[in-house]
Amino acid sequence: MGGISVQTTPVPGLLVVHLDVREDPRGWFKENWQREKMVAHGVPDFGPVQNNISFNGRAGTTRGIHAEPWDKFVSVGSGRAFGAWVDLRAGDSFGAVFTVELTPWVAVFVPRGVGNSFQTLEDATSYTYLVNEHWRPDASYAALALDDPTVAIPWPIPLAQSEVSAKDLHDNPRLAEVVPMPPRRT
Amino acid sequence: MGGISVQTTPVPGLLVVHLDVREDPRGWFKENWQREKMVAHGVPDFGPVQNNISFNGRAGTTRGIHAEPWDKFVSVGSGRAFGAWVDLRAGDSFGAVFTVELTPWVAVFVPRGVGNSFQTLEDATSYTYLVNEHWRPDASYAALALDDPTVAIPWPIPLAQSEVSAKDLHDNPRLAEVVPMPPRRT
Ligand SMILES: Cc1cn([C@H]2C[C@H](O)[C@@H](COP(=O)(O)OP(=O)(O)O[C@H]3O[C@H](CO)[C@@H](O)[C@H](O)[C@H]3O)O2)c(=O)[nH]c1=O
Ligand SMILES: Cc1cn([C@H]2C[C@H](O)[C@@H](COP(=O)(O)OP(=O)(O)O[C@H]3O[C@H](CO)[C@@H](O)[C@H](O)[C@H]3O)O2)c(=O)[nH]c1=O
Repeated sequence: MGGISVQTTPVPGLLVVHLDVREDPRGWFKENWQREKMVAHGVPDFGPVQNNISFNGRAGTTRGIHAEPWDKFVSVGSGRAFGAWVDLRAGDSFGAVFTVELTPWVAVFVPRGVGNSFQTLEDATSYTYLVNEHWRPDASYAALALDDPTVAIPWPIPLAQSEVSAKDLHDNPRLAEVVPMPPRRT
Repeated sequence: MGGISVQTTPVPGLLVVHLDVREDPRGWFKENWQREKMVAHGVPDFGPVQNNISFNGRAGTTRGIHAEPWDKFVSVGSGRAFGAWVDLRAGDSFGAVFTVELTPWVAVFVPRGVGNSFQTLEDATSYTYLVNEHWRPDASYAALALDDPTVAIPWPIPLAQSEVSAKDLHDNPRLAEVVPMPPRRT
């Protein structure tokens, strides 16, 4: 029972958190966010005020790529997802990509300005995340097309077979047209 | 799209929160906890520091009845559960019971000292909750037997057919033997 561990990634500030999941005949239990332990392991004390859950009926559902102006702590409560992140902040890491499979054991801290997206790998995947500002319907932020050819995210399920919202399918620009988000805080 | 609403119950301080769930072809999306809106609707500004998720493989999995010394905000991220709460605080509401079905649309705020329990109504039910103190393995608190005959919770699935932990099956006393938790704060 090894506790948690935290790993840096090629996207500055984006952290992978390996969770301590306790399995028994009922199923499993995890401390999905635990302020004290996670901060001691280097996760920012980001002060979540909102918890969102998106339930996805079918494997292959794809959401993103959204770089809202708040930090996120993302994970799954059931199922599995392929997670992909693209740095959309002004600076030398603009366009940097990181992907990892989100299982019950893996959470990711996503700093504001980094584009967030995922594709579910199982039916009935529940995606849960904490954010440190209240959502505003009129918030303006960068977004990126899921099929951007420069970034070329290797989606496990072809986007043509995927359930995607009309907004994500049509409204999000390619990398060259993205207006970068403010540079990262140091 | 009516926003949220909050309802009181026979257990003082225990609140049912009807969430605004947005459905579309991908599945659904909800603000499961939104500090500003919920506090405006009368939910205590309880300051969560930990988010726990318990995944339950089979319908009929039953957990409880635990009255930890911290507040909880409970809901589901997939599946459905029958939720049951028993007031274990010293005072005139000691032994009061409330039950409600936890669907994606329904969350419950559980004040400290109220016994918390649930039984899953579907396979692959993910139960998620926020608490305002970090869990301590040595925390002492009241617990109650799931089959207590006084409280007589009408479990939809007989406990004999249910997956229950050894601890919940054997260690929790009947109502008459419960050492009450401190009275509620006013
Ligand atoms: C993000 C958000 C959305 N909504 C509403 C607006 C819509 O009616 C509905 C779904 O919103 P959409 O914008 O389509 O959500 P979705 O495409 O899933 O994207 C959001 O949720 C994703 C996870 O599901 C995140 O990765 C994205 O960053 C986030 O923007 O929920 C809220 O009421 N509150 C929110 O916080
Ligand atoms: C509550 C809690 C438990 N644990 C560990 C201890 C065990 O190895 C494992 C499961 O703990 P158990 O005590 O069996 O959890 P469970 O019976 O599900 O009961 C807890 O979780 C229930 C929801 O699953 C709550 O309704 C209860 O109030 C809570 O006590 O997780 C943690 O690491 N952190 C925690 O916060």
